[in-house]
Formats: sequence, C-alpha cells, structure tokens
Amino acid sequence: MELLKQRIRQDGKIKGTDVLKVDKFLNHQMDVKLFNEIGKEFKRRYEGCEINKILTIEASGIGIACVAAQHFDCPVIFAKKSKTKNIAGDVYTSKVVSFTHGREYDIIVAQEFLGPQDKVLIIDDFLANGAALQGLISLVKDAGAEMVGCGIVIEKAFQPGGDMLRAQGVRIESLARVKSMNEETGVEFA
Amino acid sequence: MELLKQRIRQDGKIKGTDVLKVDKFLNHQMDVKLFNEIGKEFKRRYEGCEINKILTIEASGIGIACVAAQHFDCPVIFAKKSKTKNIAGDVYTSKVVSFTHGREYDIIVAQEFLGPQDKVLIIDDFLANGAALQGLISLVKDAGAEMVGCGIVIEKAFQPGGDMLRAQGVRIESLARVKSMNEETGVEFA
Repeated sequence: MELLKQRIRQDGKIKGTDVLKVDKFLNHQMDVKLFNEIGKEFKRRYEGCEINKILTIEASGIGIACVAAQHFDCPVIFAKKSKTKNIAGDVYTSKVVSFTHGREYDIIVAQEFLGPQDKVLIIDDFLANGAALQGLISLVKDAGAEMVGCGIVIEKAFQPGGDMLRAQGVRIESLARVKSMNEETGVEFA
Repeated sequence: MELLKQRIRQDGKIKGTDVLKVDKFLNHQMDVKLFNEIGKEFKRRYEGCEINKILTIEASGIGIACVAAQHFDCPVIFAKKSKTKNIAGDVYTSKVVSFTHGREYDIIVAQEFLGPQDKVLIIDDFLANGAALQGLISLVKDAGAEMVGCGIVIEKAFQPGGDMLRAQGVRIESLARVKSMNEETGVEFA
C-alpha cells in the first residue's frame, strides 16, 4: 500500500536495525484518515470472503480495527491483556510472550462473543515475531470459529513471525512489509 | 441519546447497584455502527467549537475516539497506562488511582503530540469517580493546550466524578447519565 509506505518513510523513526517507531500516526497519535484507507485496503484484499467478526488486541490494534470494521459492517472484539473485575464468566485464554516488552501475559476473550458461527479477520498494527498473532489465532481455534485471515499494517519481514504463520497455512495480508532498515539509509520494503 | 439508552437497557448487565457491564457493544465487543452515531452526537454537541485533537486513554476509549474523530477531522492520541520501551523521549505524565481495578498507575502522553497549539476534546467510555478523566485533564493543562471539553458515553451520575469536574469548570457532555440501577428494576437515567 503505497500511501502507507510513503507515510512510514516520512514519519517513521528508526532505532538501530530493528525498532521502527510509528507513534506519530499509528500507535500513539493516530491518523484516522489513514486508518480509513487501511480499512479500505483490507476490505479490497479480503473481498468476497465472508467475515462477520474482527478480532484485535489491546491497545494499539483497537483504533485500526474499529475504523476498518466500518468497511466490513461487523463488530470488533479486542482481546484483553489481563483479567479485570469487569470480565466475569467464561473466557478463552492464551499465553503470549512479548519480545517488545520483555514479558509474558495472558490474553482473554469472553466466550459469549466468539463461537463456531464466527468467520474471523484478525487485525493488528505490527507483525514481528508473531507471538501476539499466534495467541489470537489460538483463541479463534479454541472458540471453534473460522480463521479467515489476518490483516497487518506493518510486517517486519526480517523477523520470523510472518514466515512461521504462513507455513502453518494462515493467510496474512500485510500492507507494508519491511525487508530491512537502518538509521542512515532508512526503510527498505520487500 | 435515546439510541444509546435503549441499547444499555437491552444489552447492559447490572451487578448489584453500581456495576454496569456493557461489554456486548461498548468495551469488549464493539458495535462500530453505534460508535459512529456516538461520534455524530459528540460532533453535534460540540458544533462550532474548534477542536483539533482528541485525547483518550487505553484501552476501551480508543475505538470510540477513533470512530468519533472521523466527524471532527482530527487525529486521536491515546494516553498509555505504563511506560513501554517504544515511547522514548519527553512525556507528560499524571497519576491515576483506579477504583474499578483497585490500583494506581501512571498515564503518559509524548510531549511532541500535545502542545499549546492544541484544542482538545477528551473522549472516554465511562465517567464514575472521575479519576481517569482528572488525569487526562491534567495532561492537557501540563501541555499548555486548551481544554475544550469531555465527551463521555456513560456517566454514572450517582458517583461523584461528574459533579466534581463540572464544579471545576470542565465542560462534560455525557450521552447517557445513569441516575441509579438495580438488578431487578434495571437502569434509571437522569
């Protein structure tokens, strides 16, 4: 998606060879016009697929998923990262080991919102090692729902998550695949 | 907002006299069509106000704020609840004591995204004791930005947050004000 790649080139900040900060438009300050274009592009790529639920994970996936869902005419569920008093009853749960934050956490979805009748598109901002995505896919499978595919805004193609999940037969559509990056030369897309 | 009140009556779950669970449409599963109507209503109430930034807080405010922002044609920033490796540099910070979750946490916004040029609308899903909102208002003041007002989806009018903040001169627009609730008799709106 050219508009997104331009924006990454313009506003992304590179630290070393593996940190790409896009908090000016994607995951801290959020450009909702860009999110709308991202939503259109996910819809174009999954045209003809029956999707009746979008699943994402807090926090930075939520805004993208909600704006994108307007193009799919379906509700969004976000997986929560820890059990709070406000989720009672039965939940699906999966363990995620985050490389970015150096910690392990559980993700949770209430069983009443995900079941065998659901055809699910997972949306998230980043795919790197694939830990969060693997956890979300596991929730979809536990619910007996159909896993249609994933819509990712930025894939770090030099990290193993995308290849690992595609090898498992998961359909992944990434709108910008970063092949390599460098503080001096910038981002190279795959 | 009648549509919202109907939805709360239909899908809200009351526990005791002070817990209102709306995770079927607002803060776990999210009805983005309803969010769009909520956004329109915030826009109607703040018509004529110059607003160039919407501020919310992770996680459940983000979806509402992003969909609503489409009616204001401005970006959204979400305050983060803890400092992660991915936010570097200077931040505004404020301490919040959460009654819902029984814990204290810091909220953080990067200084580069909020400043004296900004006219801010704060959007959040709930207002009860006002702790989170007070923290967000404090970030806006620290940034030297103009605090235009708050857009709240559900205010628990029987808890002190709304009165406390209005007494400070903060403009608060709540789309559904719950006067009281009870497992047998349901929700009474103010």
